[in-house]
Amino acid sequence: MTDLAEYRAGAVDLLGVLAYGALTAFARLADDAELAPTLPDRVQVSALAATQFRHFEKVSERLAELEADVMDAMAPFHQPFDSFHDHTAPKTWLEGLVKAYVGDGFAADFYREVAAFVDADTRALVIEVLNDEGHDVFVVTRVRAAIEQNPDSAGRLALWGRRLVGEALSQAQRVAADREALTSLLTGTVDRPGMDLAAISRMFSRLVENHTQRMKNLGLQS
Amino acid sequence: MTDLAEYRAGAVDLLGVLAYGALTAFARLADDAELAPTLPDRVQVSALAATQFRHFEKVSERLAELEADVMDAMAPFHQPFDSFHDHTAPKTWLEGLVKAYVGDGFAADFYREVAAFVDADTRALVIEVLNDEGHDVFVVTRVRAAIEQNPDSAGRLALWGRRLVGEALSQAQRVAADREALTSLLTGTVDRPGMDLAAISRMFSRLVENHTQRMKNLGLQS
Repeated sequence: MTDLAEYRAGAVDLLGVLAYGALTAFARLADDAELAPTLPDRVQVSALAATQFRHFEKVSERLAELEADVMDAMAPFHQPFDSFHDHTAPKTWLEGLVKAYVGDGFAADFYREVAAFVDADTRALVIEVLNDEGHDVFVVTRVRAAIEQNPDSAGRLALWGRRLVGEALSQAQRVAADREALTSLLTGTVDRPGMDLAAISRMFSRLVENHTQRMKNLGLQS
Repeated sequence: MTDLAEYRAGAVDLLGVLAYGALTAFARLADDAELAPTLPDRVQVSALAATQFRHFEKVSERLAELEADVMDAMAPFHQPFDSFHDHTAPKTWLEGLVKAYVGDGFAADFYREVAAFVDADTRALVIEVLNDEGHDVFVVTRVRAAIEQNPDSAGRLALWGRRLVGEALSQAQRVAADREALTSLLTGTVDRPGMDLAAISRMFSRLVENHTQRMKNLGLQS
């Protein structure tokens, strides 16, 4: 592969992972909405789901601009995402909320890091899509209120938050091993500089720091 | 109630029924998407679901303009809609498609008839929302192809279409009996003319005609 083709392949991989991530997030949040204790809660989580589908549409459009097929671009990511969701199906309304905030937040941070290395138009689209999450305040308020009402739930939810990140990292590792195009965006090639090992380790520190902050926002120990 | 207040109450009722209808359609279509045999099919039905949520948002905005709370406006319709969906849960992907097309089509026709009797701004919004269904071609193509492949399924699906309309009418009758504000939009009041019995009977003929046409489009006997 020429370096340019590899560069484009990396962007297509990033968009593919975002597209499939948004599509599965849509399905999962629509399911979570059914667990809502009140109708206003159901509306809020349904809105989160609808937002994810809008992300999917925007990412699909960008893939079309790059003359890539969205179905093909998503194909390599079915298995890791489906495994992740199979291993982290929320059993309660609160687990669903924590997953939406902590899990999607962690993934979004990672995509932002990768986006630094793709072309400017793709980067702008990715940043726009990731900033459009919006409903964080709703989730934080609801989870904090629930923990205040029932302090015993904090320990269980903290464990859940750690499990989410553990599962996410384990799937991410698998993707990194399989998808050279995506990995080489981060690590660079002979002609295009990427991150060295020290930079990658700093990136992981940032991801963990942000995760810790999100758990703290929820009133949970990370 | 003054006639004007009654007129507004009718509009709020129509918007309330539309809002709850869109919200439940969103949830149902998101569920149906999980039954999709292929990923492109799943994307199409997820898009239908997302469209329904957009309708919900538009109708909510109009209710806010009328200084009505969307949660209050939807409250009288929880029971009939939930009953309808409990009685017509699709068991297969095809049943879900037929329900989306035949059931929602029938409901949309009815809402259009009622919209003729509300204020101009509400009417414009209702018509806009109902015209934005869009994905009819997808459903018709998929159902026809399935029947071609498996002609035996036509009889079962025709029965399913009849059941959908039967259940819808039975719930609509219940709503008509309970919601004077909505009913009197159609029948009018002393000061505001509505439909007489002959006009209402003509309206039902139109609804049945359109339903028959939709079944025909799918290649099914009504």
